[in-house]
Amino acid sequence: MPRPVYFDCDTGIDDSMALAYLLASPEVELVGIGSVHGNVSAAQGAGNTLALLQLAGRGDVPVAVGCGDPLVGEFAGGAPHVHGSNGIGEIEVELDEAARMPVAEDAADMLLRLSNEHPGELEIIAVGPLTNLAVALQRDPSLPERIVRVTAMGGAALVPGNITCVAEANIGHDPEAAQAVVSAAWPVTLVPLDTTLENVLEEADREKLCASRHPLTRAVGEMLDFYFDFYVAEYGRRCSALHDPLAAALAVGGMRPRVAPAVPVEVDVTDGPGRGQTVCDLRGQRQGPVDRPGANVRVVLATEGQLAPHMVERLLSFETVSPGVHAAV
Amino acid sequence: MPRPVYFDCDTGIDDSMALAYLLASPEVELVGIGSVHGNVSAAQGAGNTLALLQLAGRGDVPVAVGCGDPLVGEFAGGAPHVHGSNGIGEIEVELDEAARMPVAEDAADMLLRLSNEHPGELEIIAVGPLTNLAVALQRDPSLPERIVRVTAMGGAALVPGNITCVAEANIGHDPEAAQAVVSAAWPVTLVPLDTTLENVLEEADREKLCASRHPLTRAVGEMLDFYFDFYVAEYGRRCSALHDPLAAALAVGGMRPRVAPAVPVEVDVTDGPGRGQTVCDLRGQRQGPVDRPGANVRVVLATEGQLAPHMVERLLSFETVSPGVHAAV
Repeated sequence: MPRPVYFDCDTGIDDSMALAYLLASPEVELVGIGSVHGNVSAAQGAGNTLALLQLAGRGDVPVAVGCGDPLVGEFAGGAPHVHGSNGIGEIEVELDEAARMPVAEDAADMLLRLSNEHPGELEIIAVGPLTNLAVALQRDPSLPERIVRVTAMGGAALVPGNITCVAEANIGHDPEAAQAVVSAAWPVTLVPLDTTLENVLEEADREKLCASRHPLTRAVGEMLDFYFDFYVAEYGRRCSALHDPLAAALAVGGMRPRVAPAVPVEVDVTDGPGRGQTVCDLRGQRQGPVDRPGANVRVVLATEGQLAPHMVERLLSFETVSPGVHAAV
Repeated sequence: MPRPVYFDCDTGIDDSMALAYLLASPEVELVGIGSVHGNVSAAQGAGNTLALLQLAGRGDVPVAVGCGDPLVGEFAGGAPHVHGSNGIGEIEVELDEAARMPVAEDAADMLLRLSNEHPGELEIIAVGPLTNLAVALQRDPSLPERIVRVTAMGGAALVPGNITCVAEANIGHDPEAAQAVVSAAWPVTLVPLDTTLENVLEEADREKLCASRHPLTRAVGEMLDFYFDFYVAEYGRRCSALHDPLAAALAVGGMRPRVAPAVPVEVDVTDGPGRGQTVCDLRGQRQGPVDRPGANVRVVLATEGQLAPHMVERLLSFETVSPGVHAAV
């Protein structure tokens, strides 16, 4: 039986890759998807998600629009320089208008409903700012009792941030929400830049995706063209980090953590230079990873092997694993 | 001609090693030493410094007592678990009472006076909290014009702190002073835990120091016995980091930095979890160190080679380089 997953995203090029990976993964079933402000507006994120689901022939997966603004402050316009003005690298997806409606409930309500429909079974994979999760916690503080695990792409433990010196985008775009999520009584697996920047997709990988017969895999390959340009400044060549897909692959079990201690984590919600930082207590880890008693957040600092080969393999195997896909190809 | 140096310290076992190194270094002349709260009280730090100078036969170097408390808050009792209750690993140094008086001026005034006596020549090596430097800047904001360079042991850029998750002791014990120093208009070389923890003195090195005929070198070797015990928790064996001596060796030129970009640095002076962190903007350095235009703080992230052999060699060569020493041996 596939494990039920609620996916929370700000779709986004790497969100798209994570979504394609999850749709191609027989281990999990996407029972609902919520959008959130971040790389794009929450509305754009939902629209992009619906478009990608249509390409996969998976119009059955419900999509809810989530929070358009962080708990404090307002959506600041996203990251068009990273993800393109439409969030998916300027590629155009022709949509069947009838298929593109989000559900009526908002993302936080969808998450709460799903948690009640799958108590003790539902897993959360969150690859955008954590606003929807925080709002769900506000509306029903008992939510953690029904959730197996939260896997969140976000933060920077021992590497620089990507929107400030120390803040990574998902956490930095809503530090208050992130602090609510890491301090709630559920197990959190945090997948920070420390490891996502070390898992890299190369041009040869991208070309394989572009050569796929599957329209979603091909679309992911095509939108990565834009993303690869952005990462030249970081890596000195056209390639990309695998932020959101790594969180998805770790949650699914397709990738395993190599160094991932459970340690106290606090998100900096001050207005100082540390705002948005995931302050992880990684002292005393020189002789090897040590779990700290009572810590509910596991911080993935390194993975076993590289994600790219597994990711490419899974996205190319799409047709054989997802029964809903064949109609769309 | 040796370069004139003002040395600011909270003496301390590694401060003692740094002091011995500076006394043994013909490249520099210690024209004054100020003590500051930190590992021990400012008064104890001055007393320890005078005792060590006596062992070296260098009662000619003036020692001033500096600030006993940080700019905000109060001295919290130091680090007896690291440095021993007397700051020098419980070793006893018999003092000639006549030789052990600090000068009448305080450390900040001494620094200002020396800067006027050696304008454009004086270098500062600071291995404790930066309170004295901050107070000197308050008393005379033109101080930086007369200073060649400040080399400060402190901070943690991409590694955990040692008094909080993110704060290193020297910076964390007076964040407001550190912020004043890094934002003043002088070149600062910051020597953080990133590199001091990677420069390690081993038991075999310590035994060489203990076997020296020079009383100061021998005293340093003996006090390290206490320090080595503390570092078992960090390294899993008896050894020690070379915090303060590394700053001294980099300032003197006995060691060279390998990775040391000049980047914007801000000290977190909030009351949040980041208080005392040296927030260094190290984004965009993946392809090699890049100096950021206008940045006055050079952050040493790695050194060329290891300090220990050079440190041991210099402390064992004491008798041949320091004319004041022979009388004391």
